[in-house]
Amino acid sequence: MATIDYQTDPSRYRHWKLAFDGDVAYLIMDVDQAGALNGGEYELKLNSYDLGVDIELNDAVQRLRFEHPEVRCVVIKSGKDNVFCAGANIRMLGKSTHQQKVNFCKFTNETRLGIEDSSENSKQIYLCAINGNAAGGGYELALAADHIMLVDDRRSAVALPETPLLAVLPGTGGLTRVTDKRKVRRDRADMFCSIEEGIRGTKAVDWRLVDEVVPNSKWKDTVAARAHEIAARSDRPKDAKGIKLNPLARKIEADRVAYSHVDLDIDRARGLATVTVRGPAQGAPASVEAAHALGDKFWPLTVARELEDAVLHLRSNEREIGVVLFKTDGNAQGVLDHDDFLSRANGDWLMREIRHYLKRVLKRVDVTAKSFIALIEPGSCFAGTLAELAFAADRSLMLIGTREGDNRKPAAITLGQANFGLYPMGNGLTRLQTRFLGEPQTLETLKGKIGAPIEGEEAAELGLVTVAYEDFDWDDELRILLEERASFSPDAMTGMEANLRFAGPETMETKIFGRLTAWQNWIFQRPNAIGEQGALKLYGSGVSPTFNKERV
Amino acid sequence: MATIDYQTDPSRYRHWKLAFDGDVAYLIMDVDQAGALNGGEYELKLNSYDLGVDIELNDAVQRLRFEHPEVRCVVIKSGKDNVFCAGANIRMLGKSTHQQKVNFCKFTNETRLGIEDSSENSKQIYLCAINGNAAGGGYELALAADHIMLVDDRRSAVALPETPLLAVLPGTGGLTRVTDKRKVRRDRADMFCSIEEGIRGTKAVDWRLVDEVVPNSKWKDTVAARAHEIAARSDRPKDAKGIKLNPLARKIEADRVAYSHVDLDIDRARGLATVTVRGPAQGAPASVEAAHALGDKFWPLTVARELEDAVLHLRSNEREIGVVLFKTDGNAQGVLDHDDFLSRANGDWLMREIRHYLKRVLKRVDVTAKSFIALIEPGSCFAGTLAELAFAADRSLMLIGTREGDNRKPAAITLGQANFGLYPMGNGLTRLQTRFLGEPQTLETLKGKIGAPIEGEEAAELGLVTVAYEDFDWDDELRILLEERASFSPDAMTGMEANLRFAGPETMETKIFGRLTAWQNWIFQRPNAIGEQGALKLYGSGVSPTFNKERV
Repeated sequence: MATIDYQTDPSRYRHWKLAFDGDVAYLIMDVDQAGALNGGEYELKLNSYDLGVDIELNDAVQRLRFEHPEVRCVVIKSGKDNVFCAGANIRMLGKSTHQQKVNFCKFTNETRLGIEDSSENSKQIYLCAINGNAAGGGYELALAADHIMLVDDRRSAVALPETPLLAVLPGTGGLTRVTDKRKVRRDRADMFCSIEEGIRGTKAVDWRLVDEVVPNSKWKDTVAARAHEIAARSDRPKDAKGIKLNPLARKIEADRVAYSHVDLDIDRARGLATVTVRGPAQGAPASVEAAHALGDKFWPLTVARELEDAVLHLRSNEREIGVVLFKTDGNAQGVLDHDDFLSRANGDWLMREIRHYLKRVLKRVDVTAKSFIALIEPGSCFAGTLAELAFAADRSLMLIGTREGDNRKPAAITLGQANFGLYPMGNGLTRLQTRFLGEPQTLETLKGKIGAPIEGEEAAELGLVTVAYEDFDWDDELRILLEERASFSPDAMTGMEANLRFAGPETMETKIFGRLTAWQNWIFQRPNAIGEQGALKLYGSGVSPTFNKERV
Repeated sequence: MATIDYQTDPSRYRHWKLAFDGDVAYLIMDVDQAGALNGGEYELKLNSYDLGVDIELNDAVQRLRFEHPEVRCVVIKSGKDNVFCAGANIRMLGKSTHQQKVNFCKFTNETRLGIEDSSENSKQIYLCAINGNAAGGGYELALAADHIMLVDDRRSAVALPETPLLAVLPGTGGLTRVTDKRKVRRDRADMFCSIEEGIRGTKAVDWRLVDEVVPNSKWKDTVAARAHEIAARSDRPKDAKGIKLNPLARKIEADRVAYSHVDLDIDRARGLATVTVRGPAQGAPASVEAAHALGDKFWPLTVARELEDAVLHLRSNEREIGVVLFKTDGNAQGVLDHDDFLSRANGDWLMREIRHYLKRVLKRVDVTAKSFIALIEPGSCFAGTLAELAFAADRSLMLIGTREGDNRKPAAITLGQANFGLYPMGNGLTRLQTRFLGEPQTLETLKGKIGAPIEGEEAAELGLVTVAYEDFDWDDELRILLEERASFSPDAMTGMEANLRFAGPETMETKIFGRLTAWQNWIFQRPNAIGEQGALKLYGSGVSPTFNKERV
């Protein structure tokens, strides 16, 4: 299978257009029918989408946040007449492997959550203007917006026809957002999901599926007016200058992807990858202005972008890699200085963006179906933000003391304020809160250690790492762990990690990745959906699916 | 496949023994190796279990609550030397269909939640005394107890070896209870689930896997002492007399199961069943003593038992029934009078039991993989407790006015206090709270209507029912709905209902049925577990499984 590249930029978009009107941006979906990802053999008719379309959307949402501080409201609309978006392309789904379907849904879920994160935390607030039919993933995209407008032209409707048409779920957040965000009554939701043609007009408002319907004659003006009203609620700065997200400094080799501050090394024979993140070469900038001047060379932003790309690359392009080692390299104080800088400058729009970006990248790790193991060794800088990598890992191994012939200081974890609130997980808790759900008093102890290097034995004692080994045990213990992990069923690991990583409360976000996605993935394995007589396989063929009637 | 009967009684137990010591009961697992359910071709070695073993356990837990008010602590222990319980029988799992595996796990999950409900709400508190190895489902059973003791004999351990041995999850609550109830640190949970032989001794305490370890020499005395300490915390009455749960008045025919107050009619050609619940023939008893004297003939208890059996029968024995109609028949005031009686007598242990039993039965409906449709017609009694059936349904249809030639009053729903707190769902909310998550003000309006019959148009207006139809539309609309539902993929319905029924918060209970179960069911479809080269198929054969290494 061709490599999937998550990097793009507006000059390369085939499916989206951006237009600007003062503090309002229009994000216009105008899918190029012939623009299937990697030349896939399906046509993207009726603004239907595949992963390639969503990679552009994700890029646009990111760029709007960083490159356009002046944008306070983003209006998603369709560039085509009479159709907003027909959802995920069904031929594409029918041709996809199970892994591709699951990975596609995961990324689109993240993109939609990213839109919500933008509205909530960047105050770049999304409005969805549905000018035409919004079906399936099309309506699920709309559901990510804060405000949904539907044109009342006696034709345009919102619909979740996945169940009747395809025997799968509206699984990109659809069911969860309908019940938990829009708070649609469960029996109405059940009806809505059974009606292929969807619901239009005032009924869509009455059922809380959309926020307002607007007659065709007043459509443009009302959308513009609403966008400006929404923009007025934003706290984004008026006269700030955005920073440019330049192409990543990335070199892809056979067994390696090298970025400026991240290396990804692949050992396919062992099903093993190593992600090494390097701490900052320089100290924190002298001023917020200096940080702005660094642009995407500012270390926290660079790391966020490179780490994100590495994780996405691993998911899509290194499917048989089961275990990922997290390593860091550099000066802990440099990391902490940058964290402090980010915290102190939190009132600045760009620093806020960077913090939330790092949060989202760490969340991508939490929902990635690979076993993560952090290796905390001399020379590493698991401090503050980078310590989150250790707390996101399924296991963490720490070296006690030093290595023979290595005159670097013993490995240490250094906690910072960043670990106590900057990067909540999807469940709303910090990784440390989730980790110490059963011993909140430990959290208090740890707060008292902020800024102090915690070496191996103490870290193990405090529960910050899984185990600490002396040098003479390290290689053997690590080898045994990796061999053991490699011997387990990859599916069982995926299911186990999806449970153990999310102790405690659930949120709409975790329900989407837990409850909804897990059921959808189950259905994606069922013959009623994907078998030769299944609905997904037969869609469009004129032949009706034949279902096994057994209720499981 | 042979019919599965969920009814049993101690005289027929093959796998469990009950012993009593004052206010402590001992529930002793001593599985008859040759006692597989319906003559299944596997041996229940090492106290491993199948559905038949769990049906007895469920019966025992129920009877202890109703027949033994004097029991304040229940000690689960093994009747075999050196083994507590080896978990679900692996040969049984290997031979089971997907539906059987899913149904087995669902029932065992309900049984374990029933144990927790007993500890919490009946104050019949469970202690698990692990005298031997507790592996997989064996430890998951222990996890349901309030207090877990492990003998420290340098041999006995607790373990969740499902992942390394069988490539499936500890899916009967195991992963969720480890992280959310025992609050074991996630990386330790990850280690624990990777160690086939499990963890024993003080380490098991340090990791919060058990509450205490006790040397062999002090084992019996310490267990007894702990049981008596726990019993002292209970508020159960000292001198009360239990009531006997007699065999159900049940007549099983080809297309019908008839109970005293519940009828289950099967229309296999249409994939349709009808459950009709009859209201009480008599008014509420004159006194609590009179209610006790009625024993299992007391209407609310009768209905709970019969409805529960009907639902379990549908799940296991009518697998191709996709839609269940709920009907009621009788006098609404009679239902409300019984509800009032239950509420007023809530200080009485038996009335408390009955209320929680009804709650559990309604929860079984919530997690049953069938589409439920309530039909609210003249002559029905959807009032108070029975109105919960309408609120548990995926859709509800109500007749407006009367039918030609039918001189009964128009159909009505009558709300009672019961609908505002007696029967919380697994998510911790009432069905009405869940239903009106988006409009809490409606809940206030509804409270004002307690006791007043609400007829079709008003009920639809208030959102209590999905739709209300006049007589001349009724038959067509119902026919269309049933035909439509029957045309959908049964799997898609199962996944959709599992999402739409659980709006709002999640609890440990809903996480077990949502997150954990959904992932387990996904794994139960994966070749790595169930394929010819899968771990579940090859277990015990001496041949190692071959895994597809792709991470999904």
